[in-house]
Amino acid sequence: MSNRMVKLARRPTGMAKREDFKIEDGPVPEPGPGEFRVKVEYISLDPAMRGWMAEGKSYVPPIAIGELMRGYAAGTVDKSNNPGFKPGDAVQGLFGVQKYAISNGERVVKVDTSQAPLQRWIGGLGMPGWTAYFGLIEVGQPKAGESVVVSAASGAVGSVVGQIAKIKGCRAVGIAGGPEKCRHVTQELGFDACVDYKAGNLAGQLKEACPKGIDVYFENVGGEILDTVLLQMNLRGRIPVCGLISAYNATQLPPGPKNFRAVLTQRLKVQGLIVFDWADRVPEAIAQLGAWYKEGKLKIREDVREGGVDAFPEVLNLLYTGGNMGKLVLKV
Amino acid sequence: MSNRMVKLARRPTGMAKREDFKIEDGPVPEPGPGEFRVKVEYISLDPAMRGWMAEGKSYVPPIAIGELMRGYAAGTVDKSNNPGFKPGDAVQGLFGVQKYAISNGERVVKVDTSQAPLQRWIGGLGMPGWTAYFGLIEVGQPKAGESVVVSAASGAVGSVVGQIAKIKGCRAVGIAGGPEKCRHVTQELGFDACVDYKAGNLAGQLKEACPKGIDVYFENVGGEILDTVLLQMNLRGRIPVCGLISAYNATQLPPGPKNFRAVLTQRLKVQGLIVFDWADRVPEAIAQLGAWYKEGKLKIREDVREGGVDAFPEVLNLLYTGGNMGKLVLKV
Repeated sequence: MSNRMVKLARRPTGMAKREDFKIEDGPVPEPGPGEFRVKVEYISLDPAMRGWMAEGKSYVPPIAIGELMRGYAAGTVDKSNNPGFKPGDAVQGLFGVQKYAISNGERVVKVDTSQAPLQRWIGGLGMPGWTAYFGLIEVGQPKAGESVVVSAASGAVGSVVGQIAKIKGCRAVGIAGGPEKCRHVTQELGFDACVDYKAGNLAGQLKEACPKGIDVYFENVGGEILDTVLLQMNLRGRIPVCGLISAYNATQLPPGPKNFRAVLTQRLKVQGLIVFDWADRVPEAIAQLGAWYKEGKLKIREDVREGGVDAFPEVLNLLYTGGNMGKLVLKV
Repeated sequence: MSNRMVKLARRPTGMAKREDFKIEDGPVPEPGPGEFRVKVEYISLDPAMRGWMAEGKSYVPPIAIGELMRGYAAGTVDKSNNPGFKPGDAVQGLFGVQKYAISNGERVVKVDTSQAPLQRWIGGLGMPGWTAYFGLIEVGQPKAGESVVVSAASGAVGSVVGQIAKIKGCRAVGIAGGPEKCRHVTQELGFDACVDYKAGNLAGQLKEACPKGIDVYFENVGGEILDTVLLQMNLRGRIPVCGLISAYNATQLPPGPKNFRAVLTQRLKVQGLIVFDWADRVPEAIAQLGAWYKEGKLKIREDVREGGVDAFPEVLNLLYTGGNMGKLVLKV
């Protein structure tokens, strides 16, 4: 019995490659006083991971070379010296890309697998769901009757954003790549419309999907999609900026939004967000998302990949090539 | 006795030229029922004027070809059929670039020339002052001890922004072009520091002027200055976007802010503003700015140019070449 760990071997250039990581075995760690051990079962693949590997100022320090790859995961406590967590407890937290993690319980959330399967608690009921919840409601401030557009609409965050928009009485319009994703977004998730950015004429498609303009644009992507949306924003529209995935693997700084002037003429509010900003309100998000899920108002889908931690580099890249549908999860 | 008017002859390409206007005489207009006539004495030159001449969606409809050039002005009522305005009343409003204007009183403000000279009521105590007041306080939300940076710091809006920042207990740092403007900003207006963007190494100068980073950046300029500031913004910084003058005469869409990603990583709030958004609160701005002015806390300077309405095209362009210091005003 050993621990298998994915460590950062060097800073990637462009898309991360297998050689950028060192995948190695070590002894299974033992929990110290006040700590417990988690047997990791599912690892969350998040767009932000690419940023964590890069040098430079960001919202968290970069992963150091030689350090364990940072990552959210869900698993089961298998040994504990912490009275708050006992063997058998299902938990999620920042356990890293490895088979066994040690934790003192900080920022670890106990989850109820009778309510939803374990992997869902790192997806729509976990961090991506909380991000959608706070980002849309607190930053986007959607009002009933408004049009809410979300990019990466079939992804972990986007899929929840559109469904919350519907719950709030808005028109929900997704942007996704390809007919299969668009069909999923409208037919399974219940968005009013979905625009296929790979089909061309994004501006025309968007105009058709949002005949009264766009009030809230929940941004996950950036690049040309942002520029196209900017020209269709209504007066006093809101743009929560949750991600800019189109630029995460760029080797040169990509151009900025050339239609930025719309911010002035339309008096837009463009605001960056990271879920940690509402760390103290996570229980509220869990309770509300859980209730909607139970009532059948919130549909959640994971895209679970096999291969264990060894498959991490290739599975991660599916996020940046649009290869996943729904929350991308690696089964350990 | 005739009225002299500046009309838009064609849409300018790049900087507006004399040939883009038709300057002509007409009869002095007579006020109809409920109307009054204003003898215009000072015309305000505003960066937004260039946008009003351009086609395309903006916050107000473009000036039609052949129509009077839109503009704020101050003058004296000389004939009236409106009980609210009597001959001799000093007023300011959107009277256009002409010698005599007819008004029904809508959005016209009576001003007290015993408190401040007439031209000041289209400057720091007028629309530019109100813009600074609402833009900084409502959108920028400065807190005592924070660092507030403003571009075009010696201009009509910027000069008031920095002084309000000081009144609110902030560190006020200006960005201006050339040592003379910078000296004015620090020595006469009382900013803590002023950075000369023409002197090179803007990033280094800014870092020195804002050693604890930037909390509020009041944007009047855009372009490279915005990109430089973005990389020095503190967590949860605010960027009220009041103007983007660097792009107003561009013949091709200039590049967007390439450091836009800072909006996400620093959770910035970038918000466009136009003073009309607080139209119902103008009396509050007038009262507060007037009080600060009377107490000597607010210094206001106009750059008054001679030549009457005929000089309009050349005087307007001083705004875009940095040729003015303080509120640019044309004396009729």
